[in-house]
Amino acid sequence: MLNKEIPYKIYLEESEMPTAWLNLRAFMDKKPAPLLSPATLKPITHEELSKVFCAELARQELDDTTKYIEIPKEIRDFYKMYRPAPLVRAYCLEKALQTPAKIYYKFEGNNTSGSHKLNSAIAQAYYAKEQGLKGVTTETGAGQWGTALSMACSYFGLDCKVFMVKCSYEQKPFRREVMRTYGANVTPSPSMTTEVGKKINAEFPGTTGSLGCAISEAVEAATSLDGYRYVLGSVLNQVLLHQSVIGLETKTALDKYGITADIIIGCAGGGSNLGGLISPFMVEKMQGKKDYQIIAVEPASCPTLTRGVYAYDFCDTGKVCPLAKMYTLGSGYIPSSSHSGGLRYHGMTTTLSELKDQGLMEARSVEQTEVFKAATTFARVEGILPAPESAHAIKVAVDEALKCKETGEEKTIVFGLTGTGYFDMYAYQKYNDGVMSDYIPTDAEIKKSTDKLPKI
Amino acid sequence: MLNKEIPYKIYLEESEMPTAWLNLRAFMDKKPAPLLSPATLKPITHEELSKVFCAELARQELDDTTKYIEIPKEIRDFYKMYRPAPLVRAYCLEKALQTPAKIYYKFEGNNTSGSHKLNSAIAQAYYAKEQGLKGVTTETGAGQWGTALSMACSYFGLDCKVFMVKCSYEQKPFRREVMRTYGANVTPSPSMTTEVGKKINAEFPGTTGSLGCAISEAVEAATSLDGYRYVLGSVLNQVLLHQSVIGLETKTALDKYGITADIIIGCAGGGSNLGGLISPFMVEKMQGKKDYQIIAVEPASCPTLTRGVYAYDFCDTGKVCPLAKMYTLGSGYIPSSSHSGGLRYHGMTTTLSELKDQGLMEARSVEQTEVFKAATTFARVEGILPAPESAHAIKVAVDEALKCKETGEEKTIVFGLTGTGYFDMYAYQKYNDGVMSDYIPTDAEIKKSTDKLPKI
Repeated sequence: MLNKEIPYKIYLEESEMPTAWLNLRAFMDKKPAPLLSPATLKPITHEELSKVFCAELARQELDDTTKYIEIPKEIRDFYKMYRPAPLVRAYCLEKALQTPAKIYYKFEGNNTSGSHKLNSAIAQAYYAKEQGLKGVTTETGAGQWGTALSMACSYFGLDCKVFMVKCSYEQKPFRREVMRTYGANVTPSPSMTTEVGKKINAEFPGTTGSLGCAISEAVEAATSLDGYRYVLGSVLNQVLLHQSVIGLETKTALDKYGITADIIIGCAGGGSNLGGLISPFMVEKMQGKKDYQIIAVEPASCPTLTRGVYAYDFCDTGKVCPLAKMYTLGSGYIPSSSHSGGLRYHGMTTTLSELKDQGLMEARSVEQTEVFKAATTFARVEGILPAPESAHAIKVAVDEALKCKETGEEKTIVFGLTGTGYFDMYAYQKYNDGVMSDYIPTDAEIKKSTDKLPKI
Repeated sequence: MLNKEIPYKIYLEESEMPTAWLNLRAFMDKKPAPLLSPATLKPITHEELSKVFCAELARQELDDTTKYIEIPKEIRDFYKMYRPAPLVRAYCLEKALQTPAKIYYKFEGNNTSGSHKLNSAIAQAYYAKEQGLKGVTTETGAGQWGTALSMACSYFGLDCKVFMVKCSYEQKPFRREVMRTYGANVTPSPSMTTEVGKKINAEFPGTTGSLGCAISEAVEAATSLDGYRYVLGSVLNQVLLHQSVIGLETKTALDKYGITADIIIGCAGGGSNLGGLISPFMVEKMQGKKDYQIIAVEPASCPTLTRGVYAYDFCDTGKVCPLAKMYTLGSGYIPSSSHSGGLRYHGMTTTLSELKDQGLMEARSVEQTEVFKAATTFARVEGILPAPESAHAIKVAVDEALKCKETGEEKTIVFGLTGTGYFDMYAYQKYNDGVMSDYIPTDAEIKKSTDKLPKI
């Protein structure tokens, strides 16, 4: 297939789709530090994790030795409904930038959840069903993960209880209605259905909620209801494992046409998309086969990898979840209001944190207005209106392509386009109206938050 | 390729994509009746049409003899950004219905405009650019066509002026913002920028507008501005021509796997999607090669083909556009409020009207609540949340598949899934809340409207 003309979109055949997920940690000589139990501060056990998560998912969470884990047929069948995702050659963007660089993006937005989140949601729903559970609980902010999980649960006939941050529930009714259309039970958080919700409502009457509170409610609901477990859409090792389908498909598509990437770029919030995208490339890099430049892009308002510290921290504000060693701004860090809800997490998945620490990956932070400028350019020439999160990767891909224009280098740039922005039009409106603001935290603000990290 | 296992999604190679549009009228022995000039009531001339439309589009509008018209390379390149659209085997829907029928759908929603409208928008923008025009004007209701046109104009660097019905402009801001993101100038109609807008605002202070009024403003703007023409997203012959890519791709995909359709189903408002989808199949049917059953589906609230009369009528409420012989409920017919804005047109494109009259095509009307029920079933099992318009076709496809379940027939059903419902969540909310209503006009209401048809 070498030297074949590259089409605008490379679609794999069904027979070329991955049959096993890639477990990146299993390839690492120095593994990410283990998760710690919040009760004992010792490495968390399968038994402890299984109280909150499905047994098989708890197993995957702790497995850092099995290199490939077979994708069950039921999940592969579901993947066939919306995958393979196209690897797109950005001919029009290249032309608009007048760059000699060759730009490709892996587009994960061609499904109703609008993002890559579905890749893990269907896996988590499957294992819940296999375990004979009645349903799962989760939290959602803007609703992307909640939508994906609702679709997955609907497919397997599982009950799905979503605690949605109250301000989003009221102000962003569209994703709520998508979830309801898929049969999910969507509750504004804080609610009066959990003890923690009642307590918060009593303490802060009229509160519009927070993600931290919604997590606490979802965990309480999962552990107090018979036949339920809690599921989460990012940060976890299991999520990175499931998201490796993104990278595996991308690698297969590139190999099919004899293309070698020079730079691989992805946005990073909790790390689910980036960890999945880079997985097979990072393996080659660690094995010394190819020296890919790998760039994580995060918002300047929440600069976890670029300005955080690498230390053990709580994964949630309520401090009920395990502790992880990761780049963090402190679990009490409250990012300024931003339109990229998916990137407003204080920490970063342990695997990517360790890879960054080992110098195998670099990170950049970018400001919101510049991100929307890149998003608009991209939308106009490539025809896809990107999610604000995804547009962080676009911004850096454009920067790198413009560097090539200066140097004349014909680098091959691959980035992850995680999703569409159809439910983010309020943000685009602010940009269109010229009233979008940027915020960069001061060193003092970050220090104030990271000074409070647990002493471990 | 016969007997090859059918994948969930059939994607054509770029090299298999159509290089020419199919002009269905050119294959008809008895042609549709000609458009008449509203001034002379005689067949409209190219000169008259060229004052409103681009010269080449006016030529295409009148050409009922050229069987295939080459698709210019620039348009084919744009098509490659979001096409070929997948032909999906609805394995999961078949399983859910427990039907022996084989169900396929051609999915046109994988682009930011969210529908098939882009297929004609890009063609119309191209010819405007080729003619050296500065820009185009159009009207939009909910905004699907306006979005598609904005994307197309942005690609060719054309100015795009969209008159958006004021109530939609205010109540449905998301599509408006998509249009603005693509650089379109969106004006709520009636506006104070046209004579007709000023007049309507003076006569009806506080009016929230209508599609008829928006058309009048767009036509006035096009004819009074230097270097502008008016474009329209449905009903016209040129639109059916461009939309033939839907049917051509569908036919190629079926042929590739040795599949023969028995039933072909599409929703019909002005007829752009259905006319495009059926075009190559209708040619075979007219040539006696294959007796496809072809079904147009329309809302019971606007039953043009099922209860209208076949006669000359005005295409717009303002009576400034040409007259067409078509199935019509009368240009003064106001359909009840419905959530399928794209199907609320009083008439039907001339070609489909003539084919219906010749008995080559049948029509069914369905009620809104049943449509949303089918939409929800489909979304849950196939993962795609359909536009309300598209769901009309789903409803009849499901009906036909259930008939096969009764009879045991293994019919192959192909339907057009024109787009996604991401901007229609208010409608889904009404359905989810159980407060959606249906309306079927009485015979007296329809007679009152059709009694006022022009005497020609």
